[in-house]
Amino acid sequence: MAQKLEGSLLKTYKQDDNPNKMFLAYKVCMTSKGRPWVSSVVRKTRMQIAQDPSLNYEYTPVMGMKSFVQASLNLLFGKNSQVIVENRAGGVQTVGDSGAFQLGAQFLKSWCQSSQIVYIVSSQKEPHGLIFQDMGFTVYEHTFWDSAHLCLDPNMLLDVVKEPTWRMASPTVPLSRPVWSGRHRQDSLSLQHAPHGCVFVIGSMGNCQLTPSQWTQLMTLMKSKEIFPFFDIPYQGLSTGDLEEDARFLHYFVSQGFEFFCSQSLSKNFGIYDEGVGTLVVVTLDNQLLLRVLSQLMNFARALWLNPPTTGARIITSVLCNPAMQGEWRQSLEGVVENVMMTKEKVKEKLRLLGTPGSWDHITEQKGSHSYLGLNSQQVEYLISEKHIYIPKNGRINFTCINSYNIDYITSSINEAVCFTKDSER
Amino acid sequence: MAQKLEGSLLKTYKQDDNPNKMFLAYKVCMTSKGRPWVSSVVRKTRMQIAQDPSLNYEYTPVMGMKSFVQASLNLLFGKNSQVIVENRAGGVQTVGDSGAFQLGAQFLKSWCQSSQIVYIVSSQKEPHGLIFQDMGFTVYEHTFWDSAHLCLDPNMLLDVVKEPTWRMASPTVPLSRPVWSGRHRQDSLSLQHAPHGCVFVIGSMGNCQLTPSQWTQLMTLMKSKEIFPFFDIPYQGLSTGDLEEDARFLHYFVSQGFEFFCSQSLSKNFGIYDEGVGTLVVVTLDNQLLLRVLSQLMNFARALWLNPPTTGARIITSVLCNPAMQGEWRQSLEGVVENVMMTKEKVKEKLRLLGTPGSWDHITEQKGSHSYLGLNSQQVEYLISEKHIYIPKNGRINFTCINSYNIDYITSSINEAVCFTKDSER
Repeated sequence: MAQKLEGSLLKTYKQDDNPNKMFLAYKVCMTSKGRPWVSSVVRKTRMQIAQDPSLNYEYTPVMGMKSFVQASLNLLFGKNSQVIVENRAGGVQTVGDSGAFQLGAQFLKSWCQSSQIVYIVSSQKEPHGLIFQDMGFTVYEHTFWDSAHLCLDPNMLLDVVKEPTWRMASPTVPLSRPVWSGRHRQDSLSLQHAPHGCVFVIGSMGNCQLTPSQWTQLMTLMKSKEIFPFFDIPYQGLSTGDLEEDARFLHYFVSQGFEFFCSQSLSKNFGIYDEGVGTLVVVTLDNQLLLRVLSQLMNFARALWLNPPTTGARIITSVLCNPAMQGEWRQSLEGVVENVMMTKEKVKEKLRLLGTPGSWDHITEQKGSHSYLGLNSQQVEYLISEKHIYIPKNGRINFTCINSYNIDYITSSINEAVCFTKDSER
Repeated sequence: MAQKLEGSLLKTYKQDDNPNKMFLAYKVCMTSKGRPWVSSVVRKTRMQIAQDPSLNYEYTPVMGMKSFVQASLNLLFGKNSQVIVENRAGGVQTVGDSGAFQLGAQFLKSWCQSSQIVYIVSSQKEPHGLIFQDMGFTVYEHTFWDSAHLCLDPNMLLDVVKEPTWRMASPTVPLSRPVWSGRHRQDSLSLQHAPHGCVFVIGSMGNCQLTPSQWTQLMTLMKSKEIFPFFDIPYQGLSTGDLEEDARFLHYFVSQGFEFFCSQSLSKNFGIYDEGVGTLVVVTLDNQLLLRVLSQLMNFARALWLNPPTTGARIITSVLCNPAMQGEWRQSLEGVVENVMMTKEKVKEKLRLLGTPGSWDHITEQKGSHSYLGLNSQQVEYLISEKHIYIPKNGRINFTCINSYNIDYITSSINEAVCFTKDSER
């Protein structure tokens, strides 16, 4: 019997029969009614596609729908961007972002045998880190969240890529975590500094505001240590509400001559959750290199699923290639982000009115749906066991799970947790 | 740059600019107008689903849509069959049949480390055999087609599983074939007899009619040598037109207490080619074993694609769970098979009228869309180079590619090939 994943907070939640229970860690954006959000433009497009008699439903190529991959690349880099004009950005359609990581990891495993070390942000350990780990990579977790100062700290990121001094985590820091697979048991390790030639998984950087000089420092370090970036763009547009802004940090890496992989998922920002629409994006230094990498990726994709599914890709391509529909989609993203900011403001205001100790500015300082509440583990434990509010240990919640029906219960519970737990350090 | 797959007959065909060119090796059934066949019931269901406001498009579980997996199992074994009643048949929804083979192969690789040898029918080498090969299995090809007597010979199958005498192929038999992947170059090997504990991939047996005593012999041999069957049901119902008949041989294995995997694809027999709807079916001796195997498979599936796509699964479940729609679907399958038989009769009759040397009864003696024409490699070569009719080296074609527009050209070309090639041995 396979070991259960530790991350089954959702499972514990589901088994709880308290009527007040709530789960604030869904990966996807929720509507004010507590249902997964779907962009209005998707419903229309789905119907149009079903009614279109001219469509054929034949096998897609191994690389996926060409028009979908191109539209995805244009969205990520801009139609007239350097990499696209120079024909050195390409992609393979994958089954969701797990598929993109699986495909990328297989390539790195076979073709970069010297770099079998992966660095990943803790919140991405599941499931992306596990994909690498299961394939035999050594996976190290890190975080930029400074729980003492309640902010995302670019220096913590810089520290990770700094000089190659290996140091094991001090035993007082609970970083070890058993892995779900019965095959490769491995405790998560803490490695203070990413070693030469490792793979560095970088998620959305929108929340971690680096100064220009910090960007330069980061990229110089990564270049000198030949660290391979594997970006993760899980929901472009849902961080700031601005599609271009959310992918801007990628452009820095392009302009500095990096080669990289990027998992680009379009399931969450369209609301097509059940179709797993992803792309493994490849950026190389020239077109010849790109073609070679794509030819190898095609072999892996052929063995993995042969033909990626088209429904989601077809919906997204229709939207992206039609300016009016794309405009409507953009507006729907802005709407989600505005609601998130409003919810955060309300949470902060309610905590202020309740007289909850401490400053709660960090809630509104963070961008996007998923942000740190800034609670310590005792407070989190209190919320789960006493209030049946399920949130991850690190206190990073999905603010779209908070709505007018539950906000009072949640804020008063947070207030209780902060006031009643003895250790008020966060 | 990755090596090109040898099987790119389709690519050569596409590059040919002769106006008469035709490709007779498509994997899927074609309509009389030369388009991939789609069951009429699929179009209706697709529309109904798009118009259903009650459906949600949330993430599917890692195991896939529960109702889809159950409907697939019922279709394969019968709702009231022993394995289903005893709760020892289960399945994981996969991305097509490649996904099912990938998932099953990963399990076997990790959990049956003593049996890293796979036996597979030549026509299935691509892509299924390559999945095993790429994962490090040693893959041997075999065939039941007796080209001398122009028939599928059960004894050739029995011979393969017989006593464990290892013998390398004689160098005069051109069995070696380089592999597409640049990573593991390996020539295909010929191993006369499947060794103890190997994995035996068994495709549709409808065409290879074993007598009851041959079935007993086959299963006794496989049991004594602990050979693990991995069945492949790529298009149930499209072999004989009878869904139950096409899966009957599976029931023999169930009744004899075999444990096995089965890749069940429902893309081709519904005509949902672009969605890759598959199931990896697991049959074990009891429910406890089943749950354990499924729990491990879930871990692999989580890393492969996390959530399988639902569009295809949803369409199929709707059809299978509605008796009227299922009836219409069954009728559409019968229609395809009747057309295939009619086409075969016509081909035979036209060859007879042309006075083509030899008997062509083997064409109508074989069931299903894909059957051997019974041509030797010289004749095949003649058809490709002189007539631009693209068929595989072994002469196994898809008879649904033959229609009223091309039948005369095809039959007269076959006649020419047989008459003009000096070596008339087939």
